[in-house]
Amino acid sequence: MKKLILLIIINLTAVFGFAQESLSAKYNLMPWPKKVQAHNGKFVIDSSLTISINSKKSERVYHASTHFLRRLTDRTGVFLNEGFPIENKKGGIHIQFDEVSKLDIKNNESYTLTVNDSTIKISAKTDIGATRALATLLQLVDHNTKEYFIPGVTISDEPRFVWRGLMIDVSRHFQPIAVLKRNLDAMASMKMNVFHWHLTDDQGIRIESKTYPKLTALASDGLFYTHEQIKDVVAYADRLGIRVIPEIDVPGHASAFLTAYPELGSKDDYDYAIERFSGVFDPTLNPTLDITYTFLENLFAEITPLFPDEYFHIGGDENEGKHWDENKSIQKFKKKHGLKTNHDLQTYFNVKLEKILNKQGKKLMGWDEIMTPDMPTTAVIHSWRGENEGLAKGGTLIEAAKQGYQTVLSNGFYIDRMQSVVDHYTVEPIGDVKLTKAERERILGGEATMWCELVTPLTIDSRIWPRTAAIAERFWSPKEINNIENMRKRLKVVSFQLEELGLTHIKNRAVILRSMSNNQDIASLLNLSNLCEPLKIYARNVDGIEYKTYSSFNLFADACVTDASDALKFNEAVSEIVKGGDNLGVIGFLTTWSNDYKTFSQLEKNPKIRPLQPLFKNLALVSELLSKALQTKKISKESLQTIQNTMILLREPVADVELVIVDALNDLSSYCESNYSIK
Amino acid sequence: MKKLILLIIINLTAVFGFAQESLSAKYNLMPWPKKVQAHNGKFVIDSSLTISINSKKSERVYHASTHFLRRLTDRTGVFLNEGFPIENKKGGIHIQFDEVSKLDIKNNESYTLTVNDSTIKISAKTDIGATRALATLLQLVDHNTKEYFIPGVTISDEPRFVWRGLMIDVSRHFQPIAVLKRNLDAMASMKMNVFHWHLTDDQGIRIESKTYPKLTALASDGLFYTHEQIKDVVAYADRLGIRVIPEIDVPGHASAFLTAYPELGSKDDYDYAIERFSGVFDPTLNPTLDITYTFLENLFAEITPLFPDEYFHIGGDENEGKHWDENKSIQKFKKKHGLKTNHDLQTYFNVKLEKILNKQGKKLMGWDEIMTPDMPTTAVIHSWRGENEGLAKGGTLIEAAKQGYQTVLSNGFYIDRMQSVVDHYTVEPIGDVKLTKAERERILGGEATMWCELVTPLTIDSRIWPRTAAIAERFWSPKEINNIENMRKRLKVVSFQLEELGLTHIKNRAVILRSMSNNQDIASLLNLSNLCEPLKIYARNVDGIEYKTYSSFNLFADACVTDASDALKFNEAVSEIVKGGDNLGVIGFLTTWSNDYKTFSQLEKNPKIRPLQPLFKNLALVSELLSKALQTKKISKESLQTIQNTMILLREPVADVELVIVDALNDLSSYCESNYSIK
Repeated sequence: MKKLILLIIINLTAVFGFAQESLSAKYNLMPWPKKVQAHNGKFVIDSSLTISINSKKSERVYHASTHFLRRLTDRTGVFLNEGFPIENKKGGIHIQFDEVSKLDIKNNESYTLTVNDSTIKISAKTDIGATRALATLLQLVDHNTKEYFIPGVTISDEPRFVWRGLMIDVSRHFQPIAVLKRNLDAMASMKMNVFHWHLTDDQGIRIESKTYPKLTALASDGLFYTHEQIKDVVAYADRLGIRVIPEIDVPGHASAFLTAYPELGSKDDYDYAIERFSGVFDPTLNPTLDITYTFLENLFAEITPLFPDEYFHIGGDENEGKHWDENKSIQKFKKKHGLKTNHDLQTYFNVKLEKILNKQGKKLMGWDEIMTPDMPTTAVIHSWRGENEGLAKGGTLIEAAKQGYQTVLSNGFYIDRMQSVVDHYTVEPIGDVKLTKAERERILGGEATMWCELVTPLTIDSRIWPRTAAIAERFWSPKEINNIENMRKRLKVVSFQLEELGLTHIKNRAVILRSMSNNQDIASLLNLSNLCEPLKIYARNVDGIEYKTYSSFNLFADACVTDASDALKFNEAVSEIVKGGDNLGVIGFLTTWSNDYKTFSQLEKNPKIRPLQPLFKNLALVSELLSKALQTKKISKESLQTIQNTMILLREPVADVELVIVDALNDLSSYCESNYSIK
Repeated sequence: MKKLILLIIINLTAVFGFAQESLSAKYNLMPWPKKVQAHNGKFVIDSSLTISINSKKSERVYHASTHFLRRLTDRTGVFLNEGFPIENKKGGIHIQFDEVSKLDIKNNESYTLTVNDSTIKISAKTDIGATRALATLLQLVDHNTKEYFIPGVTISDEPRFVWRGLMIDVSRHFQPIAVLKRNLDAMASMKMNVFHWHLTDDQGIRIESKTYPKLTALASDGLFYTHEQIKDVVAYADRLGIRVIPEIDVPGHASAFLTAYPELGSKDDYDYAIERFSGVFDPTLNPTLDITYTFLENLFAEITPLFPDEYFHIGGDENEGKHWDENKSIQKFKKKHGLKTNHDLQTYFNVKLEKILNKQGKKLMGWDEIMTPDMPTTAVIHSWRGENEGLAKGGTLIEAAKQGYQTVLSNGFYIDRMQSVVDHYTVEPIGDVKLTKAERERILGGEATMWCELVTPLTIDSRIWPRTAAIAERFWSPKEINNIENMRKRLKVVSFQLEELGLTHIKNRAVILRSMSNNQDIASLLNLSNLCEPLKIYARNVDGIEYKTYSSFNLFADACVTDASDALKFNEAVSEIVKGGDNLGVIGFLTTWSNDYKTFSQLEKNPKIRPLQPLFKNLALVSELLSKALQTKKISKESLQTIQNTMILLREPVADVELVIVDALNDLSSYCESNYSIK
């Protein structure tokens, strides 16, 4: 009987999955809601549209409704008579919620949304749920040639995980308030609810301290947030239903701390300085000194009131303890306290920090290195290491949950690795692991991490988006929503709508290319950039010393993005040919690239675009030969040889990018060799 | 003898002018410096480049130097070993100045700049002068295929006028801090030195008041600047050598003030509300009440400390006094105080305000309506009215100076009128008027005014730039620098460099077109937008009621700009043909437009792009007929008739834009009629 029930459940899941999938071909919702039902009718958008709020005053709902109206008028061109929500009146869009929620980890974000011909009803337990419904509603806007409308649907929705975060590292490259705000907007549009603010690292302290003013005077290059600015960002996030978790990374990653206060360092007479390179560095706080704890207690006491959320991140990662090993008094201290390893010493440090934070009403969170045998389970484990760091697949997440820690997954969501969206989308946090209810509840969710060694305000949006939208779906939607092709289709629309929202991930690519070409016609460069991707997994900055923080990130690689759009299309078209399908699309691409090279050749050259010339030339050469072969159904031995020789060159990275159509070109060449007559 | 000297001076001016003009064909400097000499040699930019500062500490120079290094590395791709200026050491770029200046109207902004093979020397009286030199230096960066360099020059420079301003109206549409900061950056790059911040108007109060919190609670829609944000902007501007002049517009333009504090109004029982339309409205402060002055004195006392500059703008414009006429007690008051007209009453108000401001150490400035016979000459007259407002050509500027007022010119620099850059560039503030030294000194300079009724954060940069760069030249450079063709050539480069600096005037046009087309290929729309200009001189918003503040400004007209680029080229090419020149460029344009229409026709239509169809179709029709005529040197009567009929349609505004090639098309048609055989 048990088996039968299980079978029925499995079947229901399959049926459910299927129904949602056919709908997801129709609607471009992301993250896909828990349950969508389509029905007849449509709500037509005209100037008489109003939103009425029929509950307690909620700044969040008022703001989200106003924002909805602005975006709706901008998307449709329909001039609304009433530009603000009305209260407790009958409106076309009718919002009701039970309570104004304090923003914390227990928030109820569920909602239902019903669209009929004459009314749209949003109903939610909390005001935050109501704002999530408005995000969904905006994604439903559709049109024909004559009008904009919202199709008849009933949606009931709630998130799979309570923690759906994005971390932004503002130390390696400072990110101005405007960058943060527009990314918060984007997060909210994807129903993400945690902004993890990585505020300190070797390359700079980005938070004002009135208690320790040298932190920013000596260790920020003047680039930091004032208390007022932080309050402003936190309030902005709260209005969007996004919690803000600050990170003060200790005891490692401490070059900037020790530039300001060298007396807290583990190595005497060391010339601490703001780090300009990338990587893991030796400067570390000294965990054996009382002044270290006084410093941290005072600092935390000063800044914790700026962050109302209960969780507080202390980093704790990548401390290799080199300076500890080199310091005799630290060695003595370890012996005296029976601390055998540096891990034990760091745990000693973490436990003291946790007490300090608890006094301030905060819960300590740290990267998974803090999960040592003596660490109390009141700490929260941020799981970041996995196979790449020598751990088992899935990393430390499940282990942490089983040991009794609350835990958040970032392994698999390191978007700075510049991998395909598919690599992240297919990371299933729990998989088939069997967990007790308590264990499952301790798995809070996940966070995409935007480390900014190679990322500036000009490029950050294109590094975060649109990939993070797919990650947001992984965190919000049922596990069964995992069709890649369908995700890609929806992501394309979402990406465009993120630009509409104010993100710069599309438009700044052209800005970089215009700059590179000294304002010449960028059409050929843009096409090339749609075939190239920045080197992945830290290959762009080998050993962290190819780039300094103040090097240029206004280069060809910065105009390129992951999931290069034309490459995707071309690679797919080639696989069609190889399977015996049509080849028109392929010839079109090949012709474009050989023409593009002619256009490129006519550009006035400068030292920035010159390095692309051989790449472009070789691409054009191979394209011409293959195009000719496809058109004539003949290919010569010489041509095949030329293609093979050139392919070797095309595989070489150039200007920190790789051409991601080389395999497809190779397949095409093999296809020609096998199928066409060889002269 | 006097005549001979005059003759020599005139000749020298002519020779001087000529020499500068030939250099200005070579270098893309804007505003053009007072004196440029070219000489042999070039300073090559490589990774060893350093900037040394050899004077007192100046945050302005340190910041400008760092900013220079960042922009240099981004423009050239050269990775610098040293990313920050060094102090008192020998550097490739050597900066010296005599004093760190307090920012006020008396600033000395002169500098000299000498570029040799191995060193660049910047010398200035003040730190602000040194930052002006760095702005020039960045414009000199040149390249060949192998390297970037700065050509050998000696420049000595100083401004013609001490007041070179940009006003931004943040009331009609709120402009976030990031918008202001990037525009301040742009201003500094054009050596402008006054940001006039129009903070209040009928549509909203944008400055926080702790004394009168209802101002923002009830009259801002939540869109305003806190004191901290204002201090941040003022500090940011100071670092760039830009003074900030706040404007609190009274007694008219007071709808928002009176929404918050109706008791200060001139009309009893009036339902004051934030204004959503544009225009001149009746709500006016009551100048006969003591509480009005108490209110303003308290408000000014609260906010004047935020603005260190001596000048304070009280608006004072466009008060038609309707509500004064309708209020019996105001009528009585006028009689009692012998105030015959409403102008007299407003002067009474202004004089009281001036005393309040003087107590706070401020100089009162107001729009030129405040210049009434009884107004003390200690006030500063902001001249905005001219021929369009029924005054003599040149407006009130000269008159004000002659009467003893300091004065600033904005007549002719209303960039919200969406006129050609030429219309502003050719406004000569003083002309041939003979002035005494004292009168000339009272003419402080000018201000471009960005009124924002139809301007949002998405479009503001394209409404200000690049035209304001040419206005900045008018304010800085010698009068003799006035060659339009040469200005246009330099402006094109400057415009591109403003994008490099972070301005959005170029990239946001594509954003709007992508949004309009629902993310389809925008090539055809972009080409069309390069032939169209938004309706000028307030024709876009007749009577101020076609648009509300919350209507969409994400429309085709918002993607179009003045001085439409392809239209300029086409119009010029046609005038060449008419003169008997070559016609290849023209046929190319005509062919593009008829092909573009085919592309456009294939787009999936929506209500936003559909209205463009007839315009595009008619353009394609005329283009095809004219192209055929030019190619065959024949044209039929039917074709000529069709062209003439279609031209009537093309002259009609569509979607708030006008096609600005209609006259050229007409000329071309006439040319064909006159020169080709008619079948």
